[in-house]
Amino acid sequence: MSGEKFKKGGTGTFPAVILAAGKGSRMKAGVPKPLIKLLGLTLLERTLLTCREAGISEFYVVVGYKKREVVRHIKELMKKYEMSIKIIENPEWKKGNGTSVLAVSKHLKSPFFLLMCDHVFDPEIVKKFVETAKFSDICLLAVDKKIDRVVDLEEATKVKMEDGTIVSIGKELKDFDAVDMGLFFCQPCIFDAIEKSVGKGDTSLIGGIKILAEEKKIKGIEAEGEFWIDADTKKNLKAAEKLILSSLIKDEDGYISRYINRKISTRISRVICNFNISPNTITIISFLLSIIAALLFVHTQYIYVLLGGIITQVASIIDGCDGEIARLKFQSNPFGAWLDTVLDRYADVLITASITYACWLIYENVIAWIIGIAAITGFILSSYTRKEYILRYNKRWSDDIMSKLSRRDLRLFGIFVGAILFHPLEAIAVLAIISHVSIIWSFIKERC
Amino acid sequence: MSGEKFKKGGTGTFPAVILAAGKGSRMKAGVPKPLIKLLGLTLLERTLLTCREAGISEFYVVVGYKKREVVRHIKELMKKYEMSIKIIENPEWKKGNGTSVLAVSKHLKSPFFLLMCDHVFDPEIVKKFVETAKFSDICLLAVDKKIDRVVDLEEATKVKMEDGTIVSIGKELKDFDAVDMGLFFCQPCIFDAIEKSVGKGDTSLIGGIKILAEEKKIKGIEAEGEFWIDADTKKNLKAAEKLILSSLIKDEDGYISRYINRKISTRISRVICNFNISPNTITIISFLLSIIAALLFVHTQYIYVLLGGIITQVASIIDGCDGEIARLKFQSNPFGAWLDTVLDRYADVLITASITYACWLIYENVIAWIIGIAAITGFILSSYTRKEYILRYNKRWSDDIMSKLSRRDLRLFGIFVGAILFHPLEAIAVLAIISHVSIIWSFIKERC
Repeated sequence: MSGEKFKKGGTGTFPAVILAAGKGSRMKAGVPKPLIKLLGLTLLERTLLTCREAGISEFYVVVGYKKREVVRHIKELMKKYEMSIKIIENPEWKKGNGTSVLAVSKHLKSPFFLLMCDHVFDPEIVKKFVETAKFSDICLLAVDKKIDRVVDLEEATKVKMEDGTIVSIGKELKDFDAVDMGLFFCQPCIFDAIEKSVGKGDTSLIGGIKILAEEKKIKGIEAEGEFWIDADTKKNLKAAEKLILSSLIKDEDGYISRYINRKISTRISRVICNFNISPNTITIISFLLSIIAALLFVHTQYIYVLLGGIITQVASIIDGCDGEIARLKFQSNPFGAWLDTVLDRYADVLITASITYACWLIYENVIAWIIGIAAITGFILSSYTRKEYILRYNKRWSDDIMSKLSRRDLRLFGIFVGAILFHPLEAIAVLAIISHVSIIWSFIKERC
Repeated sequence: MSGEKFKKGGTGTFPAVILAAGKGSRMKAGVPKPLIKLLGLTLLERTLLTCREAGISEFYVVVGYKKREVVRHIKELMKKYEMSIKIIENPEWKKGNGTSVLAVSKHLKSPFFLLMCDHVFDPEIVKKFVETAKFSDICLLAVDKKIDRVVDLEEATKVKMEDGTIVSIGKELKDFDAVDMGLFFCQPCIFDAIEKSVGKGDTSLIGGIKILAEEKKIKGIEAEGEFWIDADTKKNLKAAEKLILSSLIKDEDGYISRYINRKISTRISRVICNFNISPNTITIISFLLSIIAALLFVHTQYIYVLLGGIITQVASIIDGCDGEIARLKFQSNPFGAWLDTVLDRYADVLITASITYACWLIYENVIAWIIGIAAITGFILSSYTRKEYILRYNKRWSDDIMSKLSRRDLRLFGIFVGAILFHPLEAIAVLAIISHVSIIWSFIKERC
């Protein structure tokens, strides 16, 4: 049986079924579990957006506990994200989550992805899983073989595999080599398996999966991605928040960004993600801060220069928040990234030109202008050289120390330090040299 | 029979057989036809490099007429380009080119591409044909349905097709819908067909193709690309030169580039392609010219400014030659393109900074520096904004008037005109405004 025969969603993948019917008694929260907020999004919202980012465009959400509240929220989400979501009621939700899957059987004849609303994934994991499932004729379960990183291992469902096929599964398994991540790709045979299990008195989803495992009809697929967590307790929800925030630190971050800026910006993002502030708004705020810094730098007195320096560093920190919020709330888009990058260059130019002008007033020497132009050119061209490399070689830029030293985080921090020491021109002179040397170095490195 | 069963060349395509055995009596040249020079390369060299650019890495060249000279040349090419070429001698070359194909039959059991050494192609045509042939189980012939553009139609071999299959072929065909381009993908059955034809007294390749056509074993594939030509006469060789040079004009060229610079630069390239000058050398020469222009602009007297302007425009024209030579001689590479683009930005900065400095000396007004910085920033960032767009959207940049006005060809021409009028600062002021407006415009356009 080939999956291709079945109806796929808009962009060529199968639909996703999300279970949001349980009470979540381990959570002990006032609101139903799907509506619990995590970094600006409800758990259900995050699960839907994670799936959408992986290419899934058709959803079935099963509701039960406090269904009126949950349904109201789903309708809000449908409107907000223009999503196609079918709401399935499971009056028997109290009996166990196996019955929630069975409730879908009347509506769905194609294979489908199955997720729990309270499992939080690095979107990369779902993306890769969806990609793999495309070519599968049998049921799949995402499993984590890195047992050490599993949060709350005691409560986790363990899996024993042989040549990729799952041979046994259960919470109490002593001999296991992976952990069930709660992310499934199901063929319609799952319904029969669950019914068989229900007949035996086990109404849980895992009961059905056990039957599939006995029949060797389900494979384990190792997850590729940074993190996942079953956020079914308050403690795990906290852990989920921490994991998501850590994932915002990028490999290509410069030194200042990694060790100073991100520590502050992620804390800011953690707060502002709860408000309706778009990434582009943050981009503009950071740019406006840079303009204020530039206006302060025009003056020759220390207090203005100091203030200019501080605001420059604040702008640099805030500049991290737009990308963080975009990723936290699944709002990344090419326009925002494009605008942000170009405005960053303009901000650098304004700040550097102001410093140059003020220092020219002080020193009355044309050298100030030459330093200014060298700095502006170096700042833009060190970034330009990297972009052009990516375009010409059609591959990623491999960072080295020289390249990290010429990044914006260090540049603005250098200006901040220069301002504190009341030597901003000297600071941009040093930064200019670093930038141009890093450009020349990148050509030498490539040639050798 | 699936092509996949057979041995393919290094990069996954089949080998190419190139016929270079004929006398080329229509050419009336002193040297054997494969050795005739066309824009810095011999006809055989160009055919080999065109094939290599299409992904072919294994070659069989059939020699006959003046074989010692041709073989010596092939050995030079093998060394120069580190190519794997098998030389096949056809002692019966005088009988017709069918016998040259038969000479390969002992050495080649897989399907292969077949080309004549005197057919000149837009490399895009061969690339697309090789791509198509990958999936073919039968023989293919590249045909041109745009009869109007065929050079020397009378001498061309005509083709009549039905549903893609070739039903008749020949020079004298009255009822035809395409023209044979001399680019084949052959299954081993071609050998039987030619032998059958030889048996009937026709020793030409077309004789064999006629047999294949009778047996409905060969399909016509419409060519996708700019030009091709059978360069078998001196007149056609001239026409080939013209076609190749015209193809150097790029769609994304700015106005000055298209209507002025390219007309001169292609004429320069036509000459210097006959010497051993690498594209990178030309890049460096253009950059050095820009430095000389910058040094002249530092002075305040008209004669220096005028000279600076002229050399700026010359540098701009020469800047076209590196890419032209790279394409003419199949020497394009990422490093060269990367270096050229970054050096262009540095050249612009040096020229603009010099003009700014000289005008500041004349006017003694800080406005000169502000204009200079605005210009430098605008010049680099208009290019930066385009590159960043391509990276973020992962698609081509669509040129409009604003974007073409902010390109380098027009910028340097503007400085040239400004220098002639002895108002270079005013010129860069206008160019600065154009650049920044074009950047803002590109964001507005994308948003609306």
